[in-house]
Amino acid sequence: MSKWVYTFGGGSAEGRTDMKNLLGGKGANLAEMASLGLPVPPGFSITTEVCTYYYANNQTYPGDLDAQIQAGMAHIEKIMGVKFGDTANPLLVSVRSGARASMPGMMDTVLNLGLNDVTVEGLAKRAGDERFAYDSYRRFIQMYSNVVLDVGHHNFEEILEQQKEARGLTFDNELTAEDWKKVVVQYKKKVADTLGKPFPQDPKEQLKGAIGAVFGSWMNQRAITYRRLHDIPESWGTAVNVQAMVFGNMGNDSATGVCFTRNPSTGENAFYGEFLVNAQGEDVVAGIRTPQQLNISGKKANQSDLPAMEELMPALYQELDGVRLKLEQHYRDMQDMEFTIQKGKLWMLQTRNGKRTAKAALRIAVEMAQSGLIGKDEAIKRIEPQALDQLLHPTLDPKAKRTVLGRGLPASPGAASGKVVFSADEAEAWAQRGEKVILTRVETSPEDIGGMHVAQGILTTRGGMTSHAAVVARGMGRPCVAGCGELRIDYAAKTLKANSTLVKEGDVITIDGSTGEVMLGAVPTIQPELTGDFGTLMEWADAIRVMKVRANAETPLDASTARKFGAEGIGLCRTEHMFFDPKRIIAMREMILADTEAGRRTALAKLIPYQRQDFIDLFTIMRGLPVTIRLLDPPLHEFLPQGEAEAAEVAKAAGVDLATVRSRTAQLHEANPMLGHRGCRLGITYPEIYEMQAQAIFEAAVEVSKTGAPVVPEVMIPLVGTKREFDLMKEAVDKMAQQVFKAKGTTLAYHVGTMIELPRAALQAGTIAQTAEFFSFGTNDLTQTTLGMSRDDSGPFLEVYRAKGIYEQDPFASLDTEGVGELIAIAKERGRKTRPDLKVGICGEHGGDPASIAFCQKVGLDYVSCSPYRVPIARLAAAQAALGKREDRTA
Amino acid sequence: MSKWVYTFGGGSAEGRTDMKNLLGGKGANLAEMASLGLPVPPGFSITTEVCTYYYANNQTYPGDLDAQIQAGMAHIEKIMGVKFGDTANPLLVSVRSGARASMPGMMDTVLNLGLNDVTVEGLAKRAGDERFAYDSYRRFIQMYSNVVLDVGHHNFEEILEQQKEARGLTFDNELTAEDWKKVVVQYKKKVADTLGKPFPQDPKEQLKGAIGAVFGSWMNQRAITYRRLHDIPESWGTAVNVQAMVFGNMGNDSATGVCFTRNPSTGENAFYGEFLVNAQGEDVVAGIRTPQQLNISGKKANQSDLPAMEELMPALYQELDGVRLKLEQHYRDMQDMEFTIQKGKLWMLQTRNGKRTAKAALRIAVEMAQSGLIGKDEAIKRIEPQALDQLLHPTLDPKAKRTVLGRGLPASPGAASGKVVFSADEAEAWAQRGEKVILTRVETSPEDIGGMHVAQGILTTRGGMTSHAAVVARGMGRPCVAGCGELRIDYAAKTLKANSTLVKEGDVITIDGSTGEVMLGAVPTIQPELTGDFGTLMEWADAIRVMKVRANAETPLDASTARKFGAEGIGLCRTEHMFFDPKRIIAMREMILADTEAGRRTALAKLIPYQRQDFIDLFTIMRGLPVTIRLLDPPLHEFLPQGEAEAAEVAKAAGVDLATVRSRTAQLHEANPMLGHRGCRLGITYPEIYEMQAQAIFEAAVEVSKTGAPVVPEVMIPLVGTKREFDLMKEAVDKMAQQVFKAKGTTLAYHVGTMIELPRAALQAGTIAQTAEFFSFGTNDLTQTTLGMSRDDSGPFLEVYRAKGIYEQDPFASLDTEGVGELIAIAKERGRKTRPDLKVGICGEHGGDPASIAFCQKVGLDYVSCSPYRVPIARLAAAQAALGKREDRTA
Repeated sequence: MSKWVYTFGGGSAEGRTDMKNLLGGKGANLAEMASLGLPVPPGFSITTEVCTYYYANNQTYPGDLDAQIQAGMAHIEKIMGVKFGDTANPLLVSVRSGARASMPGMMDTVLNLGLNDVTVEGLAKRAGDERFAYDSYRRFIQMYSNVVLDVGHHNFEEILEQQKEARGLTFDNELTAEDWKKVVVQYKKKVADTLGKPFPQDPKEQLKGAIGAVFGSWMNQRAITYRRLHDIPESWGTAVNVQAMVFGNMGNDSATGVCFTRNPSTGENAFYGEFLVNAQGEDVVAGIRTPQQLNISGKKANQSDLPAMEELMPALYQELDGVRLKLEQHYRDMQDMEFTIQKGKLWMLQTRNGKRTAKAALRIAVEMAQSGLIGKDEAIKRIEPQALDQLLHPTLDPKAKRTVLGRGLPASPGAASGKVVFSADEAEAWAQRGEKVILTRVETSPEDIGGMHVAQGILTTRGGMTSHAAVVARGMGRPCVAGCGELRIDYAAKTLKANSTLVKEGDVITIDGSTGEVMLGAVPTIQPELTGDFGTLMEWADAIRVMKVRANAETPLDASTARKFGAEGIGLCRTEHMFFDPKRIIAMREMILADTEAGRRTALAKLIPYQRQDFIDLFTIMRGLPVTIRLLDPPLHEFLPQGEAEAAEVAKAAGVDLATVRSRTAQLHEANPMLGHRGCRLGITYPEIYEMQAQAIFEAAVEVSKTGAPVVPEVMIPLVGTKREFDLMKEAVDKMAQQVFKAKGTTLAYHVGTMIELPRAALQAGTIAQTAEFFSFGTNDLTQTTLGMSRDDSGPFLEVYRAKGIYEQDPFASLDTEGVGELIAIAKERGRKTRPDLKVGICGEHGGDPASIAFCQKVGLDYVSCSPYRVPIARLAAAQAALGKREDRTA
Repeated sequence: MSKWVYTFGGGSAEGRTDMKNLLGGKGANLAEMASLGLPVPPGFSITTEVCTYYYANNQTYPGDLDAQIQAGMAHIEKIMGVKFGDTANPLLVSVRSGARASMPGMMDTVLNLGLNDVTVEGLAKRAGDERFAYDSYRRFIQMYSNVVLDVGHHNFEEILEQQKEARGLTFDNELTAEDWKKVVVQYKKKVADTLGKPFPQDPKEQLKGAIGAVFGSWMNQRAITYRRLHDIPESWGTAVNVQAMVFGNMGNDSATGVCFTRNPSTGENAFYGEFLVNAQGEDVVAGIRTPQQLNISGKKANQSDLPAMEELMPALYQELDGVRLKLEQHYRDMQDMEFTIQKGKLWMLQTRNGKRTAKAALRIAVEMAQSGLIGKDEAIKRIEPQALDQLLHPTLDPKAKRTVLGRGLPASPGAASGKVVFSADEAEAWAQRGEKVILTRVETSPEDIGGMHVAQGILTTRGGMTSHAAVVARGMGRPCVAGCGELRIDYAAKTLKANSTLVKEGDVITIDGSTGEVMLGAVPTIQPELTGDFGTLMEWADAIRVMKVRANAETPLDASTARKFGAEGIGLCRTEHMFFDPKRIIAMREMILADTEAGRRTALAKLIPYQRQDFIDLFTIMRGLPVTIRLLDPPLHEFLPQGEAEAAEVAKAAGVDLATVRSRTAQLHEANPMLGHRGCRLGITYPEIYEMQAQAIFEAAVEVSKTGAPVVPEVMIPLVGTKREFDLMKEAVDKMAQQVFKAKGTTLAYHVGTMIELPRAALQAGTIAQTAEFFSFGTNDLTQTTLGMSRDDSGPFLEVYRAKGIYEQDPFASLDTEGVGELIAIAKERGRKTRPDLKVGICGEHGGDPASIAFCQKVGLDYVSCSPYRVPIARLAAAQAALGKREDRTA
């Protein structure tokens, strides 16, 4: 005989918390609480195997199930001392689903089961409250009819509305016992009329119907969709939990509440919670009545005038506090519990790991580890790396009022307020006179860098999580909301329209880059505090992780920030960002507009002092750590002006005529710049550009090495597709190195390597590694090429793609392990086969994404590189990856 | 003792034609001719092993080499009956390089070796011509000094110029024997002054120096570069050939000539050639004297007044004709021979397979196979598939005069003349009134299709071999010159500027799509004649090839052309081309401008009758053959107008306001459309579009199946990257099929498959094949994504890339087998593993490229699909691939 039913309650249980596969999450947890001796309303779980059997056998049950359910009911009756269907003192039960993985709200539930025309009177008498009994009965009829008998909610809503209308009432709680009795009569009539047979009065028939309906709901459309989206196999099935009902609304010796073993908002190790006397669970949530605090300290903290449970029901409070300590010790994590007091008796209805703020999570994990409740490894695993973001940026005061204008993508975390300006030039002009501004653009381009730098935050109406605005803002640690499509910018009128609200240039708005919200006016913010807990956890993480963490940085500010946040070098210095400075862009444009190599060399000679100083600064800040410098990457047209007026200015500055500027701009125009004349293709066609950069790098390295430990620059060639491309560029870099060393009468070590950002390069990694000394995966571009998807253009369809379950996550935010990941694995394997000591890292946006970091660990990369503000996240994620936390996801 | 020297001449040889690795190409061929008993000037080859030894041993020779060279010289002396260094009758020799693979002009040569102050007198006496002897001597000094002694040419040019100036002469041939004697004196002085020692007078020393110099030239810069570009290993080395000099300029019983065993221009099996009496080889080439015909029939054909060799030297002509027959029988191919007659004796200097026109190649191969000289397989291998292009299109009359304005890419073969127009609308307007036009654009877009159709030819100033203009023109079989950057279009002025020439709208130009030339005025053309030889060869090819050949076609005209050229179905019907017709584009734009699904469906309902008729036409033309239809692929903005005026028109036609058109256009704008919202991404976001197309396909298939063999449509989903994308689209297609079958009360077989055009799709081929019934590699897009290179933007750097040896060939014209090819191989392997009967083909531009076709055969694809005019080329290339002809290249 198979065991289909597992009972719990009365101080023991047949199940355990580790039997989730068989009993479902809820059933296993109730059993565990019962085993701990906690006062759990008794009940039983019908196993997931019954569900599997049910679907495998044409929706029938095992022959011996019924007897086991009977025994389960007897178990409940015995503990509760009441009988199912007893007319004087009836046992009522709830019937709920409970799958292995949480599927909130997807399946069906029936409460108050066991009520009928007779037992309702018994309940009324026992509770001393007829109104309560008939309200419970009508709720049961409505729920049961809907779930089991397929008679829709609206039928009952109509009857209830009519009754309220007839009596001139507005709210449900104004109805009397007599009203509810009339409603019950009509409810039953509606069911009988609809089905041609009466509402079932036999509690056993009710129970059978409810169990069948819950198993049936495993295959409803909502559940199927949810499983598909969350990768939950159909074969898992659901368990069904039948449990005695308890009521917190049976008078002033009854109550119901929710509590946490520690403060979920600060993490403080203090009992925290709220409760309501003579109320049901939903009343706490509904917010109709003001909840009371659990204890006196809570009362003070919340400035509450209402008595605390500690004062009202001191014995029960002490009992609950005991439960709290027991559960936290047992589960070794902060618990979120629900309880009900029925006529002076405490019942625990649920416990689960509590949700908490990032700050609380950090404090709880560190304190639990310090107290020995959990290990350091466990503390590291407990913190969601993404959540650290909240700790590193200013956040909006959660209590402040806000008028939301729209919601875009949370592109770069942090909150900021400022006056709206619509161009980078305006941003710089306003900032110069001391104004705080939010740069607001349809989208941004490299020309806007200056304006982005001086802005408090950046708002765009187009573009995704890896649009230019998003990437640059994250790099700068500047808050950014991207792709807020609800807003309409009118550049000519200098306005921003959100539905009916018109925001003009100079009006103040607030953006929250952590939620994507855009708000009118200034919303107060709270500055981050990097508490000791943060430092402690980071220290533990660093001790455990295997992969190094570097930063993508090019400005001294970025580099300093990165170093402060614990970066172990620069993994990507994008030299192009260095050329947008007003003093340099003129020489850059002069170079682009030159017809001849000689002309280009003349212009480049003007740039070299700046470029050399850039590298001197970086090498100095990063002293002792590796610095990887990527030679010029973007197509040259990105440096040319967009408008006519500016073109004239450029012509003047560069000493050519306007026609030349126009014709060169037209000549450089590209249909798909992402796949155009960029990366090492520039180095191949205009070798003098890379020569200038190499010269600046080596001269700077020699200079800085004079005064301390020698700098070991890593020169990185972008967009390589063939070994020969790399070889030609390496040859030029080597030649320049020798030239500089000769001129300076010294020499130093350096490395030349390449970005792997094209599928061809990944496949050819074995040959490229013959000469390349390191690989850095440029996963932004590698994702674009492997998926054939432009990150700037994918917004409109990626939303639909995620809704339809094609991509679970934005592949530009979290690495597509199947496609891009396979290429990374291939390249690493082939590269290392050729050159066993090949240094391999990743420097795309994914370098700061925990799931992607876990993948990098699995593949065996040496380091990840990410924007400075993500360095702590990457450090933690790398530690978690070393602990194997995420292996399941990437398996 | 190793054998370092192989002699030839006097009716026998120690080498053979298959000893090229040892003797080099030239040495092996001379040996072969000698063995055949042909009168070859005697000589010997010093093997490539000596070259290898030389470089492996610090530029020294094997100890026993000298003795073997002495023996070789004795061999020459014996046959020629003269002695090296003999004062009265000196033997002169040439010393030439000769590598395994031809490296024309890369290494050094010395002629007339053996002359000195004494032997020059002997030569003068023997030739009876002092001027000849001293001219030969000064040439020898100049060549030897340059090659062996490193005294540059310019030294000697100066002396010669001074001598001519002093004598008031202009041309070298005006100098007398006395003049040359003076020049010789000064030459020798120059050498002595420069080197500090006299020009070597000892013939043996001369010989040793020349051999060393030729071996040394294996490592000169030119040769190294050439080897790199042609993948010739350095280790091969070169041989050195030492051979007796013979002279065709020793009087009227001497002559020199060039001849072909068959007519190289028509292929006719008739002896064909030219010669000059009392002349040297270079005189025939130089064109100073008018050459005489070899025989009387040639004299007639060329309307020559000069006597033929057949008349002047009948015995020698007969002897030469015998050589001709012997060599063609021996080499089993048409030969191109050089001969010299020295004082009445015929000497054969060279034979090699002759170059020929495509027409001649075809005729020669077919006739040789029919006569049994070669097999049919061999005949198939002999024809360069690309050369067939010449036979399928009109060609320019080679005798016509031409004024070349510029040269672009030979983008689509054939020649065409017409009046220049600068827009597709103008083209249509002019064509309607009967004018022949050349559509001239900076670049073309899908909107220009109408104008391209009515034009005689297309000329663009931007874009590569696979630009829109090039691809569409090839598809239509319309001549096209693309990317002619020397020309400047001024749309406003309606002019085309080529250096100083200004071409106005309406002026006539001629373009040659086979050479890329653009010419002023109308150049007469010759219409193609598909002779019986063509049909015969195609028949042989079809019997041998394994892969099927389909066509990329969507219009009835294209489909008919394809079928006429032997296509075995349609491999790619690009449905988007069907929507540019003026009647349809309005509904298409209405669909794009609609805000709602309902609005889109209304517009699509207007398109469906057209779309259905499109497919009825195609299915009818292709009856009995498979037709693969790709659902809508390009981003929607391609269908929207570019200019303001047109936008207003569209707004009116679609019944919306201009602001809507503008805003939708702005909304649809993409940074990188190639990687944007296109392909199945349209089908996922706007399912109604693909539904309409599927409905049209199935309704058409049902309709056409009524009256004959059932149509089996193949529905192809583009730009798939994940299995789920494909599944969602297949589900929609299947649903529509069932709906149509139900409505029509019938059913038919069909297949749903996908393009593999993204690296991710190639990697995921194993899972995609679970539901996809066929794969078609879209190698245009797969090349763009794998290489990260836009075909429209790669022109400017691909030229440099080819020059620097990064890509040997344009990867958009010939498949990049290392990168794209590996992905194709992976996808095919993984796909077939999942579904062993998966049908796999290729439908990118590469489907018509012979080298790519050979790769497809190697990987094991089922078919290739190409533009209609390339179908015969693909049929022949597929046959060659089946014969393994090209395996070497792709190995």
